[in-house]
Amino acid sequence: MFKKILVANRGEIALRVIRTCKEMGIKTVAVYSTADAESLHVKFADEAVCIGPPPSSESYLKMSNIIAAAEITNADAIHPGYGFLSENAKFSKICEEHDIKFIGASAEMINRMGDKANAKATMIEAGVPCVPGSEGIIDDYAHCELLAEEVGYPVMLKASAGGGGKGMRAVWKKENLKEAWESARQESKAAFGNNDMYMEKLIEEPRHIEIQIVGDSTGKACHLSERDCSIQRRHQKLTEEVPSPFMTTALRKKMGDAAVKAAEYIKYEGAGTVEFLVDKHRNFYFMEMNTRIQVEHPITEQVIDFDLIREQILVAYGVPISGKNYTPKLHSIECRINAEDPFNDFRPSPGRITTLHAPGGHGVRLDTHVYAGYVIPPYYDSMIAKLITTAQTREEAINKMKRALDEFVIEGIKTTIPFHRQLMDHPDYLAGNYTTKFMEDFVIEKPSDN
Amino acid sequence: MFKKILVANRGEIALRVIRTCKEMGIKTVAVYSTADAESLHVKFADEAVCIGPPPSSESYLKMSNIIAAAEITNADAIHPGYGFLSENAKFSKICEEHDIKFIGASAEMINRMGDKANAKATMIEAGVPCVPGSEGIIDDYAHCELLAEEVGYPVMLKASAGGGGKGMRAVWKKENLKEAWESARQESKAAFGNNDMYMEKLIEEPRHIEIQIVGDSTGKACHLSERDCSIQRRHQKLTEEVPSPFMTTALRKKMGDAAVKAAEYIKYEGAGTVEFLVDKHRNFYFMEMNTRIQVEHPITEQVIDFDLIREQILVAYGVPISGKNYTPKLHSIECRINAEDPFNDFRPSPGRITTLHAPGGHGVRLDTHVYAGYVIPPYYDSMIAKLITTAQTREEAINKMKRALDEFVIEGIKTTIPFHRQLMDHPDYLAGNYTTKFMEDFVIEKPSDN
Repeated sequence: MFKKILVANRGEIALRVIRTCKEMGIKTVAVYSTADAESLHVKFADEAVCIGPPPSSESYLKMSNIIAAAEITNADAIHPGYGFLSENAKFSKICEEHDIKFIGASAEMINRMGDKANAKATMIEAGVPCVPGSEGIIDDYAHCELLAEEVGYPVMLKASAGGGGKGMRAVWKKENLKEAWESARQESKAAFGNNDMYMEKLIEEPRHIEIQIVGDSTGKACHLSERDCSIQRRHQKLTEEVPSPFMTTALRKKMGDAAVKAAEYIKYEGAGTVEFLVDKHRNFYFMEMNTRIQVEHPITEQVIDFDLIREQILVAYGVPISGKNYTPKLHSIECRINAEDPFNDFRPSPGRITTLHAPGGHGVRLDTHVYAGYVIPPYYDSMIAKLITTAQTREEAINKMKRALDEFVIEGIKTTIPFHRQLMDHPDYLAGNYTTKFMEDFVIEKPSDN
Repeated sequence: MFKKILVANRGEIALRVIRTCKEMGIKTVAVYSTADAESLHVKFADEAVCIGPPPSSESYLKMSNIIAAAEITNADAIHPGYGFLSENAKFSKICEEHDIKFIGASAEMINRMGDKANAKATMIEAGVPCVPGSEGIIDDYAHCELLAEEVGYPVMLKASAGGGGKGMRAVWKKENLKEAWESARQESKAAFGNNDMYMEKLIEEPRHIEIQIVGDSTGKACHLSERDCSIQRRHQKLTEEVPSPFMTTALRKKMGDAAVKAAEYIKYEGAGTVEFLVDKHRNFYFMEMNTRIQVEHPITEQVIDFDLIREQILVAYGVPISGKNYTPKLHSIECRINAEDPFNDFRPSPGRITTLHAPGGHGVRLDTHVYAGYVIPPYYDSMIAKLITTAQTREEAINKMKRALDEFVIEGIKTTIPFHRQLMDHPDYLAGNYTTKFMEDFVIEKPSDN
């Protein structure tokens, strides 16, 4: 097994990786910026190397400093966590050149799946459903009409230069296509000086449902069921759950098979996630593949009963996977607790945590790198904790989350705990009736004394 | 369902019950002594009633005050936790007379199983194996010889008035019986002025293995597998685990069947524990039955995936059990963290907790009522936290426990964390090779700076 792993990250995920390494008897090296000297990931690692000042470009993204830290400490592997260099093909390649095992995807794999157009083309080859649409710019109206028939209504016309909804038209039936085509082109021309259009199938009531997969060096892959991540604000996930309330046994089998097919087609090695959009008819379409561990991986761990970071390390070392697919027997929910003010447009709220009381007891897991007295630096992502509850049913897991949120005390800064408390009481959330549009209509009630 | 439950206890178990009630939508009433006003169980309950000063006889054991608190607050049920009034037949009866549901055993059941001689007689009737021995005082040597043959060597001769090992002899074969009989009687006469003797089978390399059972109002019972509680100091359990490293599939079936037979014979209703001694040949003998929830119940919850307090409440309300017996698929360990100085004969160490940092992450559960700033009163049991780790194998659960113990910071008082850290490194513990005698030979290494 690896003797020493350098963790090229910060915050809760650095601590998460260090914990598993400790349990596996593997020595750890933390790297940190001058702003993170007091973080728990530094305290809990066997060794720690300062790799520069904030911002990240001067430290956590500085490949030469990280490689130097690994060489000085004789680390034989690097775990990149998520974000930062975790999906950087160049870094993966540099690690390989320095004979340091990168616990993640190969440079080739990252290149193949990192570029969206490349990834989509590969998935179409593999037979994984992708959002249908034009392959590029639409030639003319005749072409447009033909495409719409092929793709199937409803369709979305989009300005090639578009943004902010300008030059975009949803078309539900043929008789409206002509008018939409013309007005969208005019609008695009006026806004961007360009009237090139492309077409995509309109995904009705889209849900973001992703499949966790693991592949090994023999080319075998398996799936560990889904995560529903539809509750997002400006494309940032806020809370995730497994099973998805929208999932059926038949759909899980189809999506799981598709994700395994995708992974095996590209001979994917390691833990990865295949993200899909699912429409109201339970059609699903490939969005992208993440070639790394994800923030929300703990909810999967809670329902499969094993440690995904351990699995990543084992697979990176060449241990074959069992190949078993999973159907969740329990329900697990994660709330991302951010140092943000939910009553003030989620504005970041860095600063000193004066009091911290962690929730505990049956079915409660907390992953955090912060503690009473810790100062949250202003330079990084605002997530400070992941609160995870697990129970036999969705209702019980939600009730457990409410109870745990009530127990969670963080003073000195603002957090998103009050938002999650309101979310857990929202009738549509309780009914499992939500799409990626959910947060657009969500109104946060300010407490009377705020 | 019950509308409001009064929790007639303190500390972590009071908090434990309140958490589940919250999750079930049941209102809670905490009771507290003047010494416990700042405890979390008081803060987290919907209502709280002060029931007197310490010691417990003036508050937590004062039935009239507790019943008055329940009547004032209109509680329709009382959960007694463990200890205090949890196995008090009179209190169970008083609750019944006041039309308040006692979430525990009936007075009749407590009387039947609370008295050891009664319990043993009942279990013999039910066909549950008990430690063989004389039914009372041995008449004379001829009777002694006959009994030893019946019971089977090795046997233990014990002075009826005995204590501290005086007048006690282990006899491994017939040729040594006469001499043991005479010398034990002489020793007893000299020490206690009485030479009455009784006999029990000597349990070789005894292990304390208990079976968790649940029975319902229809008379049906099931078992939720075992807990090995052999690691004890002066009859106080220090750490527990499931599965027992000594368990086999065949033995679990036999012990589980015996425990279910015991529960069904007495039509036991609620959660209970049948405690057995298991000898080195894997013979097992009934010791006693606890008609309440036990301190170590969380390790069972971790491997059965449901909430035992919830189950208690449901059964008390008349909901029938599923009746399914459990075989643990995971491994779970609990360390009881006490406010005691392990380097000074485990002397209690009450006082103010100045710093508290809780361990977290994958497979870690913490049940505690204390927090930074909390003052541990000197009047009660010294247990301040239960740290529980769960993993796929015993080795992983132990490594997780080591990691979690390393992360756990409690300052201002002494705790047993350093003891558990040493225990988790002990070769016999690691080998699962321990009996109830384990702690007699355990030498705690003092750190050089202590």
